[in-house]
This record gives sequence, structure tokens and C-alpha cells, in this order.
Amino acid sequence: MKTYYDCLPCLIRQAVEAVRMVTDDEAVQEKVIRQVLLETARIDLQKTPPHMARIIHRHIKEALGNIDPYKDIKDRFNQFAMQMYAKLQKQVQNSADPFETALRLAIAGNIIDFGVRVDIEEQHIEETIEECLKSPIVFNSPDDLQKAIDAAKNILFLGDNAGEIVFDKLLIEQMPMDKISYAVKGFPIINDATMEDAIDTGMTGLIKVLDNGCDAPGTILELCSEKFQEVFRQADLVIAKGQGNYETLSGVNDKDIFFLLKVKCPVIAQDLGCECGSIVVKRITA
Amino acid sequence: MKTYYDCLPCLIRQAVEAVRMVTDDEAVQEKVIRQVLLETARIDLQKTPPHMARIIHRHIKEALGNIDPYKDIKDRFNQFAMQMYAKLQKQVQNSADPFETALRLAIAGNIIDFGVRVDIEEQHIEETIEECLKSPIVFNSPDDLQKAIDAAKNILFLGDNAGEIVFDKLLIEQMPMDKISYAVKGFPIINDATMEDAIDTGMTGLIKVLDNGCDAPGTILELCSEKFQEVFRQADLVIAKGQGNYETLSGVNDKDIFFLLKVKCPVIAQDLGCECGSIVVKRITA
Repeated sequence: MKTYYDCLPCLIRQAVEAVRMVTDDEAVQEKVIRQVLLETARIDLQKTPPHMARIIHRHIKEALGNIDPYKDIKDRFNQFAMQMYAKLQKQVQNSADPFETALRLAIAGNIIDFGVRVDIEEQHIEETIEECLKSPIVFNSPDDLQKAIDAAKNILFLGDNAGEIVFDKLLIEQMPMDKISYAVKGFPIINDATMEDAIDTGMTGLIKVLDNGCDAPGTILELCSEKFQEVFRQADLVIAKGQGNYETLSGVNDKDIFFLLKVKCPVIAQDLGCECGSIVVKRITA
Repeated sequence: MKTYYDCLPCLIRQAVEAVRMVTDDEAVQEKVIRQVLLETARIDLQKTPPHMARIIHRHIKEALGNIDPYKDIKDRFNQFAMQMYAKLQKQVQNSADPFETALRLAIAGNIIDFGVRVDIEEQHIEETIEECLKSPIVFNSPDDLQKAIDAAKNILFLGDNAGEIVFDKLLIEQMPMDKISYAVKGFPIINDATMEDAIDTGMTGLIKVLDNGCDAPGTILELCSEKFQEVFRQADLVIAKGQGNYETLSGVNDKDIFFLLKVKCPVIAQDLGCECGSIVVKRITA
């Protein structure tokens, strides 16, 4: 997905929120915000919003000498999700359709996205779970995904955020785990899950986890490590969580990809062709 | 009011919406948006948001060779308000407190602000009227304003937007009209009312109208004409409509000013110390 003009104020807002979250020093805040505005003035609009977000957050991280400004947020939501985990696992097991319930919960976990808003509270997650369990899924059905999983030999599951990764475990437990690799980001970027989060939440104890070697909030293939690119090439099915993975991979035309996400922004809603707030299972095929 | 960091994404959004409204030429859109981002990168944050909005809209107007991109919008809302006028005038006359009813309607008219959003529809105005007639007024009371008007010898009424100017007529008719001057903007800026709107809506037939000689969406005194500055100095009471006038005059400390506005943005809500959406009558005194 290209960067729309409407993404520009949102990228600036994201920078303002991020810089404010990590420092009270107004001189540093102002310096970073001016740098971000200058960068945005020369943005390549043909590239995806995560390309620009990566550049913006590099400025923030460099200016602050703090390579992981969202560390506390990530830990907090990993812990919160871990506390819900046993209960949600039972809910999946006791449901009429464990796969669909787990899928809906995995999408609910996608609400934990600090790129979209920084005022997410635990209460929002509980509300989103309720909503995702009963609202319609748009584009493709859980059954479409189930069939693709059954047919696949080699599945690459692209994670999105910390906290959300725990919800992904619920879905992965309903899948043939020996066929799946789970990818996290190579370096801290916003609240996206890294290897540390995969270890902390027990994902590494469940299936093979690799990092993508990149610090973009999505999957910019050309910036990912050779190793990750090879795993991507080898996969005959990709399951991609969240807006960032949709933005960066929706243009791929030689791969079977299912995007699983909660739509949280009007630009992505329009690009997808659905309402903002939708619960999306969207397949693109080779 | 200084420019807060949160104003920056909003100024960019405003530029995107404005440029899109006035041209479909993507090359022109992109050029203007990049200029606006560069300007914003060197913004003086100690100045008010209307300072920056003035610079941004100069870029838009220059790039488009179109000195009044909001002309159609202004005409449309003048006409819509004029169609409601006789009915609203009767409503004022038949109400238990005509002054308060007219004041509430004048504040309701402040919803017609295309700086805040460009998707205002006639229906929003009708809803806002209903809301403004029954919701509480915050900070000062209609009676505070009535007393200040009774005591004043020389009142300067600073208008805000086209369409809204018709609602201001309802309030002015409840005031001693010979004591009042009504000010409009000197040049087109967003959908702010200019002399043309004052003529079209009959304001010039009701009281003395002057323009402020400036093209900012507010009242930046040092950029206004000498003539306007003199009228401002002579006034012993200023009634200032809308967010732009609040932003540019809230720091004045030698004048009796009543700000009348519908709060439409969280930054102004925070600066004022009230909820977004509030119906404000706020006095500052020398």
C-alpha cells in the first residue's frame, strides 16, 4: 500500500505521541519533531507508511539514546495478556469451533497497536475481545483459512505486536505447529514484538521463532535479512497479522497470504474496501 | 495561545483537506503538501496556530492561483443560514429569554468551521442548534455578558465564519446596535467571513462593519490594519467568536473580552480547561 496524504498527519501525530512518551525534555521533543517534519517533507509517497515510520522512529531513538522507548509498554501488555491466557485457552477449548474462536481472539489481540494510539488501556482489550467474538468477519471465512492451513506444507506466521503475540499463541495451538515458523521484528520498533517478547511469552517454547532482521513496523521484504527472505520464499502460506504487515505486503503478487487484522484507521479501511473497525481475514493469492 | 505539538498534525490535515478540496491535480497537491511540511518544520511554536494556518493557506492559494478556494462553501452556508434566519428569529422572539436564546444560536453557528473539518453538512448545524439550546454554558453566564454589554459604550464584535455570520445577526439584534462594530477578515482565509459575506447576509444593513485588513483565521493584532487596531483600542468591550479568535486573543491582558465559541478541538479544550464540545462564554478582563 502506498502512503496516502492522510497518512502524513497521522505519522506526525505518531511522532509527537512517541517523543512525548519517552522524554519530558522540551528541547529534545522539539528537535525531533522538527526533524520528523523535514523527513516527511521529502517522503517517497510510493513507499508504504511503515517505510516512513521506520525513519521517523530512528530519529526518535537516536535523539533519545534509547533504543527501545516502548519497552515498558511491551512488558506491560505481555504480562496482561499472559494473565488472560489460561482463561482464553479454556474458552477456545470449550467453544463449538475452537479454530474460529482462536482466530477471532488472535484478531482481537491486534488492538494492542501503539502506532495507532498511545492511550490503549487493558479495558479496551477486554471490550475488543467481546466484540471480535461476535462481530462478522469480512472478506474471507475462518474456513478458507482452515483449508489453506490444511493444504500448506510450510507456514510463515508474521507476528505484529507485543501482548498480541500471546493471542497469536491461542491460534497457533489450533494449527499444525510443526509446519509453522513465527517471525518477530529484528529490532525494537514502536510496540512490535521482538525475540525478547517471543521468549517472555513462551512463543519460543511452542514453535520455531525467527526475527526478520529489520526495524520497520511491518514486513519490508527488501530490508529484511537474507535468512528471513529465504524463509518467506520457502513458505507456501503466509499468515500476516496487523495493519503494518498489510501495508507492506498487500502488493505481493506471488504468494498465498492471509491478512488477519482489526482495522483501526480510515485509510486502511478504504484501501481494503471495508469499514473502519472491521475484523478482517483477507486472502491474496499468487 | 501558543502552538502545541498536537496542533502540528492538525495543521497538516487541514492543508491536505484544503488542497484536495480545491484541485484534483496530484502534482499540485503534492507540491503544496511538501511546502506545508517544510514550513511546519520551521514553525515558531510561540506564535498561535492561526499564524501558521495563514502561512499554510497562502501556499495553497498561491499554488492554485485561486485566492478564495472556499468561496463555494461560504456561499452555500450563507444561503443555508439565511434560509433558517426568519424561523430562528421567531424562535428568539418567542423564547422566555430572547438574549440567551440568541446567544446560544450564535454559538451554535460556530460549528460552521471548515478549519476543523471539511465534511460539515447542513444536518450538523441543525443538530448543533438543538444541542446548544439545551446544553450548559461553561465559564460565564449569559447574564455576565448582558451586564457587560449594558455597561459598554463601544463594542467590537469579531465575527468568525461565513454562514455563522447570520447566526451572529440574531445576537446583535438583541444588543444595542448603535454601539457595535462588526469585524470581518480582510482577505479570504478558509471559510472565514469577509466583507462580501457581510454584504450578502445583510450584516452591513444592520450595523457598521469593518474588515481587519488581515488574512489570518483569527485576530493577529499586529498584522491587522491600523484602522482596525484603532477600533480595537477604542472598544471597551470585545465579543470574539470562535476558536481562531480565542487562539489569537486569549493572551491579551488589557481588554474586556468575551469569547463565544463551540469547542471543537481537544487542544483548545485543554487550554480553556473544559470538555471538547463545550459551549463557551469566557470572559477575560484587563
